[in-house]
Amino acid sequence: MDGYYAFMLVATALVLLMTVPALALFYGGMSRAKSVLNMLMMSYVAAAVVGLIYVLWGWSMSFSEDELLGGLFSNPFTHFGLKGVEADQLIYVCFQMTFAIITAALISGAIADRVKLSAWVVFLPIWVTLCYFPLAHMVFGLGYLHSIFPAQDYAGGTVVHINAGVAGGVLALIIGKRLGFGREPMRPHNLPLTMIGAGLLWFGWYGFNVGSIVFVEGDGGPLDTAQFMSETGVTFLNTTIATMAAVLAWLAVEKLLHGKASSLGAASGIVAGLVAITPACGAVEPVGAIAIGAISGAVCSWAVGLKYKFGFDDSFDVVGVHLVGGILGTVLIGLFSSAAAPGGIDGLLYGGGLGSLGDQAGAAGFAIVWTGVLTALIAYAIKYTMGWRIDEEDEVEGIDFAEHGESAYDIATNTGSSHF
Amino acid sequence: MDGYYAFMLVATALVLLMTVPALALFYGGMSRAKSVLNMLMMSYVAAAVVGLIYVLWGWSMSFSEDELLGGLFSNPFTHFGLKGVEADQLIYVCFQMTFAIITAALISGAIADRVKLSAWVVFLPIWVTLCYFPLAHMVFGLGYLHSIFPAQDYAGGTVVHINAGVAGGVLALIIGKRLGFGREPMRPHNLPLTMIGAGLLWFGWYGFNVGSIVFVEGDGGPLDTAQFMSETGVTFLNTTIATMAAVLAWLAVEKLLHGKASSLGAASGIVAGLVAITPACGAVEPVGAIAIGAISGAVCSWAVGLKYKFGFDDSFDVVGVHLVGGILGTVLIGLFSSAAAPGGIDGLLYGGGLGSLGDQAGAAGFAIVWTGVLTALIAYAIKYTMGWRIDEEDEVEGIDFAEHGESAYDIATNTGSSHF
Amino acid sequence: MDGYYAFMLVATALVLLMTVPALALFYGGMSRAKSVLNMLMMSYVAAAVVGLIYVLWGWSMSFSEDELLGGLFSNPFTHFGLKGVEADQLIYVCFQMTFAIITAALISGAIADRVKLSAWVVFLPIWVTLCYFPLAHMVFGLGYLHSIFPAQDYAGGTVVHINAGVAGGVLALIIGKRLGFGREPMRPHNLPLTMIGAGLLWFGWYGFNVGSIVFVEGDGGPLDTAQFMSETGVTFLNTTIATMAAVLAWLAVEKLLHGKASSLGAASGIVAGLVAITPACGAVEPVGAIAIGAISGAVCSWAVGLKYKFGFDDSFDVVGVHLVGGILGTVLIGLFSSAAAPGGIDGLLYGGGLGSLGDQAGAAGFAIVWTGVLTALIAYAIKYTMGWRIDEEDEVEGIDFAEHGESAYDIATNTGSSHF
Repeated sequence: MDGYYAFMLVATALVLLMTVPALALFYGGMSRAKSVLNMLMMSYVAAAVVGLIYVLWGWSMSFSEDELLGGLFSNPFTHFGLKGVEADQLIYVCFQMTFAIITAALISGAIADRVKLSAWVVFLPIWVTLCYFPLAHMVFGLGYLHSIFPAQDYAGGTVVHINAGVAGGVLALIIGKRLGFGREPMRPHNLPLTMIGAGLLWFGWYGFNVGSIVFVEGDGGPLDTAQFMSETGVTFLNTTIATMAAVLAWLAVEKLLHGKASSLGAASGIVAGLVAITPACGAVEPVGAIAIGAISGAVCSWAVGLKYKFGFDDSFDVVGVHLVGGILGTVLIGLFSSAAAPGGIDGLLYGGGLGSLGDQAGAAGFAIVWTGVLTALIAYAIKYTMGWRIDEEDEVEGIDFAEHGESAYDIATNTGSSHF
Repeated sequence: MDGYYAFMLVATALVLLMTVPALALFYGGMSRAKSVLNMLMMSYVAAAVVGLIYVLWGWSMSFSEDELLGGLFSNPFTHFGLKGVEADQLIYVCFQMTFAIITAALISGAIADRVKLSAWVVFLPIWVTLCYFPLAHMVFGLGYLHSIFPAQDYAGGTVVHINAGVAGGVLALIIGKRLGFGREPMRPHNLPLTMIGAGLLWFGWYGFNVGSIVFVEGDGGPLDTAQFMSETGVTFLNTTIATMAAVLAWLAVEKLLHGKASSLGAASGIVAGLVAITPACGAVEPVGAIAIGAISGAVCSWAVGLKYKFGFDDSFDVVGVHLVGGILGTVLIGLFSSAAAPGGIDGLLYGGGLGSLGDQAGAAGFAIVWTGVLTALIAYAIKYTMGWRIDEEDEVEGIDFAEHGESAYDIATNTGSSHF
Repeated sequence: MDGYYAFMLVATALVLLMTVPALALFYGGMSRAKSVLNMLMMSYVAAAVVGLIYVLWGWSMSFSEDELLGGLFSNPFTHFGLKGVEADQLIYVCFQMTFAIITAALISGAIADRVKLSAWVVFLPIWVTLCYFPLAHMVFGLGYLHSIFPAQDYAGGTVVHINAGVAGGVLALIIGKRLGFGREPMRPHNLPLTMIGAGLLWFGWYGFNVGSIVFVEGDGGPLDTAQFMSETGVTFLNTTIATMAAVLAWLAVEKLLHGKASSLGAASGIVAGLVAITPACGAVEPVGAIAIGAISGAVCSWAVGLKYKFGFDDSFDVVGVHLVGGILGTVLIGLFSSAAAPGGIDGLLYGGGLGSLGDQAGAAGFAIVWTGVLTALIAYAIKYTMGWRIDEEDEVEGIDFAEHGESAYDIATNTGSSHF
């Protein structure tokens, strides 16, 4: 099985690529020119902070064999600093680490342009400790949540996308809007950057979804080559076609609602499809994958407009894409899952009754409440101590200069002649 | 052989990366600022449309065991929707799917800035059905064309590059020129974007060429580890050095003809080398790879100027690079192939006589005629029904706003202060 | 072990990606808008020139069994043009080739905006022949240097980073400053481009460091699966966490010294951490990796300011990051290496005494002197024959137009309407 292992090395690098630089570019292109560097920094800094925390207590708290509080999380000290972890297990630690990183980084899209770097650096370790590591234990580590709602979540619909989506929404509400939100246009400053980001996210997502075969137990023994081949084939295919269906569905809804299909819609459709198929990629047959992708693309395309109606500044649609898409992917498993897929469970439409649907909805609901409550506590604690926001004057001038002393572009000047 | 399988997982993701975002960026950087998003969209939409078609009837029509019409293609219904395909074969379906996607996306470079998105969406399924799937069957599936001209085509010189190149040329002629073509400068608006695209294409092309070992039968049995290792080593090396030779040859010709070697030339040289070595990477020794790369770089560097002479607006040189490079790579196998390479056939310069050269030229010619005729029929059918082109006024204003309601950049504004 | 082999295929593609396009983008974003294309070209051309040289005599001179001059290098003719190299060894040739390519390309960052392309093309083959291939033989090939200082250098602290760093510094001194250096601002023109480059460098570096398991001999036999798994786990983890520590350390020092943490600092911190852990990734435990990363990030953050103090125009900090980081990584192994790590040697802090520290410092010193002297000879030879620099007028106007007849961007024009 050294081929399986070789794939995990590559998959881990791919998932890190999803944050640095893919997600950073996806968000960065949507930001304004005066704040793109800050947006990029939030992902890069999240990678550094969360990654180091992960080797200190994150892995232990997520996966150590010493469960605490009935399985809410594991003992953070059992493998503190990775003590007692065998060398041939380290790649699995790194793989899991990259999941924690991207989940935290995803949140930044909801609070663009207005947050002090210091507040972000304080928020990250607290949030992953209270929200990410416990949910990772409860779902991936088969802890408490799995014991009450034994839902299918192949690669992290609850742990990653609902988790990040709820946290983003809560922070957007508590931190407040960008100055001028809803009154002045806040157009993406560089859509090709967003398109690069979306393309690299898709590429890296194969590491994320297909690599999540690490969670699969062999049938009565270690995973063997035949199972590795058949299961990765299914998750690869489902990931691919759900994404394609989501792109077309998003563009179709845009065309219907607004008359034109946009490149931002294509990029967002990619992400909406990938989010929704993340929990479901091992649970459904191809037709189910296409259905889940299409539904997610269509619904998210509509959902991203809600922030204007309700007046919360989820700047780059962490709620509209990751929360909505994450819920859809998680819950639709209850309809579309098939016993013929690796997950082996029939959903409602395959004659499996309401049991699966209940488990899926229960797990989604639990994750929403868990993270919603705890994120609010953290957010208020920071708000009333160090404070989240930069000065208003700095925000108007641009956070890039205020926080980082830089501006992103110097293209017009530095030109010595009329040739340019 | 789970290592071989693990490599195919990665290779498939790499070939998808070639279209989304690599090819999109390569073309997008060459377009004008007012039409870059449309250019990106053509690749992204091609991925979604062709990918879904592929799982419906593309795979079956290319590779099902039920050949129709003497091997022109296979029965599209045998494995419709992938029914009857085993789970451990799905990665091969996905790998082939990514080939269909990039072939269709390549065509878009010939018709930049002037085509309705709706026409492109209608064209794609018809074209892959009439031109791509049959050629894939006839060459990769050892169908009719292989029976009359048993040519070597390791990774798709005929199926991918000649196919896309001919189609691009035919569409450029039938759809007509961009307004102002030949009269006003149409400079690339963002060459670093094109350089990113070329670099990522090179990276992804290792999936394309080296991964094409999937077509190789073992010697009297399934492929074994020794053959996997020796054959991928050859194709990896040949792909690498042909590309390097093409870059230097392209730049040298530019320097001779125009006095200066350009970055667009370096980017184009990368693609010209990769295109030419695509069919040949398993057929030649290193010296042959360098020769094929150098010849392709030099000839394509000259060929891309022909569109101005003949007045057809092959906007980003799909004919000049993919058709010319594809023909060169396919036909030069007749000269440079060596029995010491995996293909096992001696070409003319290795004492093998004219047989191989005839097969190679025959296969190239067949592909040109097949796709040329059928693409013309499709193109005229669309022209005289829904029409291809956007309004002239919209084209002048920019297709990004007209078709997508967006503009790519907002860099100069959004700046609140004099710091920037 | 076909999984190991499959990983090497991917790793080799990843290391090529580090140069084309990652390093090119990292440097290109830091350059001025009038010279970004030249900067990109220096990397792309280095890939083409050095790659072809490598198959001609580079591999033979580095690794042929026929050592010359007591092990300073090997016979360049033994395997000239790869004759006598078995097909299943070719991927190792390609892997090594990509190391030579990036080492040469790294140098370009020290001499931005002012060098004739022709001088660069002449410099490259001479430099790799006199400086790179001998050091690769002496360290990776266990030649002379390894016999006098048997240092640990897992992936190329001496061969790659010290080598490139010294060469960059010497060239910067001999070629001289950019016009206006120190008097006018030379701000990075496109920091998102630099961030993309840094992100892709990190991604590709897993090929570089983890793939360097090719140098590892099995314990009394060929490498087996267990050793492959445990050793790559260690190098993957160490590479990851050293980089994270370096990012945070760089930003912290920036904050202390200048009051603000910058995105350029985050990007540079990534590279500083990766450079320092390159030689050490197989020698240390996680705590040692974090220490080496943090020290390198902090020291390099300070060191990049020295060029202004001493007045040499190492434009994009090849000395400050690659030489300083390379020395730190190489020498700190003497302190932090642990017998519990794959290298199996205890450094000073682990009770191993001064022996390891002496070997590490000796190897670093040897590499500095070897490359320093030989690079100076080459640089002066070019200076007093063909000359290095473009005309002053061209430099003011911008090297992109002068050398390549191009400009990078055409974003403001080409806009037909007020929509943009």
